[in-house]
Amino acid sequence: MGCAPMGQILYDEVMRYNPKNPYWFNRDRFVLSTGHGCMLQYALLHLAGYDSVKQNPGHPENFETPGVEVTTGPLGQGIANAVGLALAEKHLAARFNKPDDEIVNHYTYVILGDGCQIEGISNEACSLAGHWGLGKLIAFYDDSHISIDGDTEIAFTEDVSARFKALGWHTIWIKNGNTGYDEIRAAIAEAKAVTDKPTLIKLTTTIGFGSPNKANSYAVHGSALGAKEVDATRQNLGWPYEPFHVPEDVQSHWSRHVPEGAALEAEWNAKFAEYENKYEEETETLKGIISGSCPTYNPESICDATRNLSQQCLIALAKVLPGLLGGSADLASSNMTLLKMFGDFQKDTPEERNVRFGVREHGMGAICNGIGLHSPGLIPYCATFFVFTDYMRAAMRISALCEAGLSTREGRVHRFRQLRRRQARPHPPRHRLGAGDRHQGSGGAEEGGKKVRVVSLVSWELFDEQTEEYKESVLPGVVTARVSYVGSKGKAVGIDHFGSSAPAGTIYKEFGISTAKSL
Amino acid sequence: MGCAPMGQILYDEVMRYNPKNPYWFNRDRFVLSTGHGCMLQYALLHLAGYDSVKQNPGHPENFETPGVEVTTGPLGQGIANAVGLALAEKHLAARFNKPDDEIVNHYTYVILGDGCQIEGISNEACSLAGHWGLGKLIAFYDDSHISIDGDTEIAFTEDVSARFKALGWHTIWIKNGNTGYDEIRAAIAEAKAVTDKPTLIKLTTTIGFGSPNKANSYAVHGSALGAKEVDATRQNLGWPYEPFHVPEDVQSHWSRHVPEGAALEAEWNAKFAEYENKYEEETETLKGIISGSCPTYNPESICDATRNLSQQCLIALAKVLPGLLGGSADLASSNMTLLKMFGDFQKDTPEERNVRFGVREHGMGAICNGIGLHSPGLIPYCATFFVFTDYMRAAMRISALCEAGLSTREGRVHRFRQLRRRQARPHPPRHRLGAGDRHQGSGGAEEGGKKVRVVSLVSWELFDEQTEEYKESVLPGVVTARVSYVGSKGKAVGIDHFGSSAPAGTIYKEFGISTAKSL
Repeated sequence: MGCAPMGQILYDEVMRYNPKNPYWFNRDRFVLSTGHGCMLQYALLHLAGYDSVKQNPGHPENFETPGVEVTTGPLGQGIANAVGLALAEKHLAARFNKPDDEIVNHYTYVILGDGCQIEGISNEACSLAGHWGLGKLIAFYDDSHISIDGDTEIAFTEDVSARFKALGWHTIWIKNGNTGYDEIRAAIAEAKAVTDKPTLIKLTTTIGFGSPNKANSYAVHGSALGAKEVDATRQNLGWPYEPFHVPEDVQSHWSRHVPEGAALEAEWNAKFAEYENKYEEETETLKGIISGSCPTYNPESICDATRNLSQQCLIALAKVLPGLLGGSADLASSNMTLLKMFGDFQKDTPEERNVRFGVREHGMGAICNGIGLHSPGLIPYCATFFVFTDYMRAAMRISALCEAGLSTREGRVHRFRQLRRRQARPHPPRHRLGAGDRHQGSGGAEEGGKKVRVVSLVSWELFDEQTEEYKESVLPGVVTARVSYVGSKGKAVGIDHFGSSAPAGTIYKEFGISTAKSL
Repeated sequence: MGCAPMGQILYDEVMRYNPKNPYWFNRDRFVLSTGHGCMLQYALLHLAGYDSVKQNPGHPENFETPGVEVTTGPLGQGIANAVGLALAEKHLAARFNKPDDEIVNHYTYVILGDGCQIEGISNEACSLAGHWGLGKLIAFYDDSHISIDGDTEIAFTEDVSARFKALGWHTIWIKNGNTGYDEIRAAIAEAKAVTDKPTLIKLTTTIGFGSPNKANSYAVHGSALGAKEVDATRQNLGWPYEPFHVPEDVQSHWSRHVPEGAALEAEWNAKFAEYENKYEEETETLKGIISGSCPTYNPESICDATRNLSQQCLIALAKVLPGLLGGSADLASSNMTLLKMFGDFQKDTPEERNVRFGVREHGMGAICNGIGLHSPGLIPYCATFFVFTDYMRAAMRISALCEAGLSTREGRVHRFRQLRRRQARPHPPRHRLGAGDRHQGSGGAEEGGKKVRVVSLVSWELFDEQTEEYKESVLPGVVTARVSYVGSKGKAVGIDHFGSSAPAGTIYKEFGISTAKSL
C-alpha cells in the first residue's frame, strides 16, 4: 500500500527482461523483505508480463512463483538474503569480469520495513554489507511507522539512518514516500553513483495510503480493508475500474519492458559470445556456476579428527567446485573452515572465497541462503559450534523451506553439515565414511581383562538404512553389555540435564562417567 | 586481562556490601557479558570477601557462584540480561519510591566485548534500553579489537559509538583502557550524571595486556598464556609474588569495602524501617517481590479460545502477583498478552506493566531473563508465535540453564507458556485445565451417522502422568479408529513436510485433510 509507488519505480528498474528470456543470470535481483506485502509483488509481476502468478501464497515463495527470488516472511531474513545476493554479484564480478568485457554487473534491490529493521539479524547483515562495501545493494526502507501493535513510537524510536551511517552505508531520506516519484528516481540514481557503499533509501510513507478511514493505522497492517473501505479508497484515489481490470495506458507502460528486455538480452548475449571466444577457461567455469553442473568427486578414505577431515573435504571440493565459498562465525580455526589456497572475501578482494562472518550466526545463515539462491553453481557453506545453531535456527528453517541449502540435488553439499559439537570428543570416530565401523579394542587390558568392541557410529540415519545382516555384524545381538549408543538392553552413559563447562576429564569425573562405573 | 583495570574500578563501585549482608535487593548489579573472562570476576569476588569462589566453571553461573548475577557465555545474552535488570530497577523505583523515601535506587553495570556487539541480540536490547531511557544502565565496551579469528578489522569495522548514539545512548570513549584509571572513574561519574539515557563507555584496550609476546593477538583469546609467558608477563608487570598470593596492601584496599557495605546496609535498613512505618500496604507488596512469596490462586474453569483464556489467566494472576509484568514481540493483540488494567511500561511511565518489545524475540527473551533474575518476586512473561521461538532459542536455553524462567518453584509461572501456534486451530480445546477431556460429539451427524468422541488433549506430558484407568477412560482400547493424536493403531492426519501459508480451509483442502478422507 504505502510502498506501491516505490514498487512501481522499482519494477521499472528491475523488470527489464521478458520472463521467457533464457538469460537470467545477470538480471537485477529484488527481495521483498516485508514478505507479507507480496500482493504488490504479484501485481507487478503480472504487469511485467510474468504468467507465473497463479497461486498466491500469503508470503512470496521462490519455489512457487517464478520472479520471486527468495522466500520471505519471517522479518529480517529478506534483507540478509539480499546481502548474500549482492555479495555473490560482487564476488563473481571480481572473478570473471575483464576490462574489455563486463559480463557480471547487476543490482540487488530490497524493500524492508520497520519490523525488519527492529530484528537483530538485519543489523548483523547490514553491518557486514557496510564492511564489505556492497555498492550495488540498494535498500528501500518503508518507514510507515506502524507495526501490528500500533505506532512504532511504542517500541522503536532509534535514529535508523544514523545507525546505518554508523554501519558504513550511504543514506537518503525521502519524506514523501507516498507520491514522491521524482525523488525516488533521483535517489536510485544517487545510490547507483555511490559505488563503494550500500545505500539505504528511507521513505516515510503512510500505511494504507488512500484509504480515507484506515490509512496510517495498524488496522490495515494485517487485515483486509473490507469491501466498503475498498470502495471508499477507490473513490478517494480516483480509480474507477473494476477489480482486476488493467487500463490500457498502464498495460502499454509496462509492456514496453518486453522489447527493452529483449534488446538488453541481445546486447549481453553478444558480449558473452565475445567473452567466450577470448576467455575459454573462464567461460567454462562460469557456465558451471550459472547452470550448477558439477564434476564427479571421489573422496579418499583417510583417518583424522573429523574437523580436519571436514577441512580436507572442503579444500578438495573447492578445487573442483568453482562456486564453493563460505566461512564461519568467528570460529574458522575451530571449525576448520578455511580454504587454505584462497584469501579472504573482503571489500577490496571480493574474488576470494573465505568469508569472515564475525560472531553473526543468524546473519551468516541468511546471507548464505542469498548466495545459494543467486546461481545454482554457487555453493555456500557456513559453520559454528552446534549449540550456537540456536542463534540461526530461523535462517536454517527458511533454508530448508526454500530449498536454498539442505538440498543435495545436483551435487550441492549439505550446507550446514559443518555445525559441530562444542566439546571435543575424547575418541573421535576412526573412520567416518561408513555408516558404522567396528574395532576389536584393547580396552580389556584397561579394565579387568574384559574384551571391548568399539563401534563408531557416525550416523544413526545411515545405520538404520543398512541391511539387518550388516547391523547384526556391527551390533551383534549376543553382546548385551552395550555402552551408548542404543539397543533395548543397552546402557546409555550420559546426562539427562544441562552440562557444565570444564575440560572433558573434569566433567566426566564430576558426573561419574568412567569405564569403572559403566561396565 | 585487558579489562582488568575496568574490573577493579567497577568492583570498587559495585561491591560495597559484605556478602553476608542479608540486604541484597537494592544492591548494584554487575553482568559479565563476556562470560569467558570470568577469571577476572572470580578473582575480584574473592578479593571483595566472597567465599563463594570454590568451583570455577568456565563461564559464570548464577546458580553455582554467589556474587554472579546471571549465567553468561553465549555472546550478546549478558548485555540483554543487564537491560532486563535495569528495567526491573526503573520499574520498581517508579512503583515504590516516595519523595521522602527512596528505597529502590541502584545501578546495573555490564562489561561487553566485540563479540557481544556483533551479535544482533545486543542491538535489539540496546535499542530498547535507549528507547526506555534506562539511565542507570552503565555498559563498559571492552574494545580489544581482537576476536577468535584475528583482528576485528576482518569482519567488524562499523562505528559502534555512533550506532549507540543513534540508539539513544550517551557515549564516552576512553582511548587508554589499559591504565586510564582516572578517566574510567570520571566516565562512571559522567554516566551517573546522565539520568535519562543509558551510557556506553568504550574502552580501547590491549588484549593480554602485559604479556610481552602475546599481547594484542588472538593467541590470548581462547588459550592460556603458558608457564613461560606467564613468567615473562609477571616480570614485565613488576609482579614478584607467588601464584594466588594477595599482597597486604591489596587486601587492605579491598577489605575496606566490608565496613563501607555495613554502613550502607545500616543506612538502608533505617530507611526501609521508616518506609514500613509510613507505607504499610506498599511494604507488604514490595516484600513479596523481594522474597518471591506468592498468594494462592484458584483458577475457575471456563470455556473460551486458549489465547483468550490465557489473557484471562494473566489478568487474574496480575491482580494477585504484584511482580507479574511482560508483553509480546509486536503481537500483543494476537497473543492476547495485554494486562488490560495497566498501561505501557515506557520511559515516562515505568510503573506500568505492559512491556512493548517490538519485533525483537531474541532480545525479549534475554531481557525477561534479566527481569526474572532481579528479584524472586518479579515474574516476567513473554509471547510470540510458536514458529518465531526459532529467533529466541538461545535465550530460552539460557533461561532453563540458569533457572530464570522455566522453574515453577515458588509460584512462578512457566514464562514461555504463551508461545503458541501461528495458525489458529479450527477447533480450540474446549476445556484446557485438565490433562485430557472428552466429549461425546455430534460429529456423527456430519458424516454418515458415525459416533465420534472428541478428546481434547492439551498436554501429552500431563496425560502420561495419569493413571492407566484414567487414560483408558479417555482413550479406550476398544476404540481403534483414532484420528490424531496417537495409538499404535491410530491414524495421524497431518503433513510430514513444510506447510504453506493460506487460510485454514484452503490449506486443508490443498493437503486433502477432510473428514471424508480421514474416517
